[in-house]
Amino acid sequence: MSVPAPIRWENGRLLLLDQRRLPGRVVFEEPKDVESVVRAIRQLRVRGAPAIGVAAAYAMAMAWRNGEDLRQAAAALRQARPTAVNLGWAVDRMLAALSRDMDLIDEARAVHEEDRAMCEAIGRHGAPLIEPGGRVLTHCNAGALAVSHLGTATAPMYLAHDAGIRFHVYVDETRPVLQGSRLTSWELTQAGIDHTLICDSAAAHLMADGAIDLIIVGADRVTANGDTVNKIGTRALAITADYHGVPFYVACPSSTLDPATATGSDVEIEERPAAEVTGGIPAVAGVKVRNPAFDVTPAELVTAYVTELGILEDIGDCLRRKSVSEP
Amino acid sequence: MSVPAPIRWENGRLLLLDQRRLPGRVVFEEPKDVESVVRAIRQLRVRGAPAIGVAAAYAMAMAWRNGEDLRQAAAALRQARPTAVNLGWAVDRMLAALSRDMDLIDEARAVHEEDRAMCEAIGRHGAPLIEPGGRVLTHCNAGALAVSHLGTATAPMYLAHDAGIRFHVYVDETRPVLQGSRLTSWELTQAGIDHTLICDSAAAHLMADGAIDLIIVGADRVTANGDTVNKIGTRALAITADYHGVPFYVACPSSTLDPATATGSDVEIEERPAAEVTGGIPAVAGVKVRNPAFDVTPAELVTAYVTELGILEDIGDCLRRKSVSEP
Repeated sequence: MSVPAPIRWENGRLLLLDQRRLPGRVVFEEPKDVESVVRAIRQLRVRGAPAIGVAAAYAMAMAWRNGEDLRQAAAALRQARPTAVNLGWAVDRMLAALSRDMDLIDEARAVHEEDRAMCEAIGRHGAPLIEPGGRVLTHCNAGALAVSHLGTATAPMYLAHDAGIRFHVYVDETRPVLQGSRLTSWELTQAGIDHTLICDSAAAHLMADGAIDLIIVGADRVTANGDTVNKIGTRALAITADYHGVPFYVACPSSTLDPATATGSDVEIEERPAAEVTGGIPAVAGVKVRNPAFDVTPAELVTAYVTELGILEDIGDCLRRKSVSEP
Repeated sequence: MSVPAPIRWENGRLLLLDQRRLPGRVVFEEPKDVESVVRAIRQLRVRGAPAIGVAAAYAMAMAWRNGEDLRQAAAALRQARPTAVNLGWAVDRMLAALSRDMDLIDEARAVHEEDRAMCEAIGRHGAPLIEPGGRVLTHCNAGALAVSHLGTATAPMYLAHDAGIRFHVYVDETRPVLQGSRLTSWELTQAGIDHTLICDSAAAHLMADGAIDLIIVGADRVTANGDTVNKIGTRALAITADYHGVPFYVACPSSTLDPATATGSDVEIEERPAAEVTGGIPAVAGVKVRNPAFDVTPAELVTAYVTELGILEDIGDCLRRKSVSEP
């Protein structure tokens, strides 16, 4: 794995890879306060649900070290991206550590390390899904850049590749922010994994052609019933996969599960600026735009969830196993 | 209707609107020979199945007037875009007129005029599908720019708008060539029709949200069984429409029907250059790309075909009525 970790804590400094500059340039920036981290999250310089969680944990640790108001820091971070459940989860965990008088820098490092271990476990469970000669499709970036190590959707790919399995990945470009063409394709190139870029709308044609054996995507949030909130376009992919009989897997750490939210329709979907859509393309000046950043994939369309606890067909299993393993 | 006709024949000169320059600039060019028309078709300066047919008819007429070899002209035109059935249809019709010693310029004008009348009839049949307050989604550009007058998918919208019906159109941007953001949105703006631009991948989310009442798209070719070949992304739209119970209409003149081809799987799908996908976006240098320009929507997913002969649930009806009306 030769993909740079997007979040580093080195000699008491937080370093964040500016993902907006990829694939052209690899630039790390050093935010010095919570506000800078909030801005980096909002502007998608740091993105991907788990990475946002890790960055928020370090931001809380920095605020603690700097003697800032941690309630205020927590509120600011929570508002940075309303859909990502890991953000609230990481902030809550840091507040809990604070209330127990723990060292928040150690706690943030623990969050980061657990994240790495989770990716590894997701990869171990998911790698056998990829057979020699297999054709895997993925959407957006649920890769090393979105997390901290092997990624979630990409973890099975990285471990299968390390095991010498030869396979092919189709990468959705992922409009409007192009996480597929900018990030996933760049990651896979760094790792030497053979892949092909396609427009999001071409996926159904490839499935009809028999060119896709399985789909693996990440998740920003999985609700109690298994509905999956992920990058806009995931829902269409899951519906078309079902139509073509292509298995559709959601790879996510159990921290992405949100048992407090009953179904996907209870989740607020972030609407992002029109300029994300019209910025890079020829369009009529001032045209109205809708730009929902996420959509909901109904649980019935998910073949199984690839988690650090194993491949689970029923997300309820995950909650039950979690409550056993985390007494 | 204040949308400029994309193809004009004025004082013996053929004028083609260069659609690649829209929405920024409105520029007409004057091709003087068949080769220039072939180039304009290949480079998508002229696009849309019916418009390609009309341009090809005029190109044959020019070749005839210039004393060029018409067999050679026909062969060159046929190769310009292999998927569009109207191209072959128009070329054949001109060759038939030649064999009957007809004036080919008159014949090309007749093709053009019939095209206008067909759009009008499609609009008349389709307009009642759009109710006051209705929300219509369309993909690509099957508009005035693709045809010669009211367009096909847009004809019901233009006539409903003229009749004072207020409704809203969602326009898929239509990657990779962006016919939605460049052309359909521009056309609707010219005509004063309220609309919103979305990424192709957001359509399923809007349907889930109950924001779409019906979908109307055009077609490049409809095979004998009703399978519909249209812009890449149409298949996913039809599958997701079916999942959400949203009616899915294909608007097309009967010249788009290809009774000689049994099903969509018998149609060669044009694969276009990678640069169409990677040209305008940040991507890894030299990344592999697949860029199928069209896909096939299975007949079972089409609610009805809006043709100049009426709204037909079974495309076989169209063939039967055509054989009655064209003895």
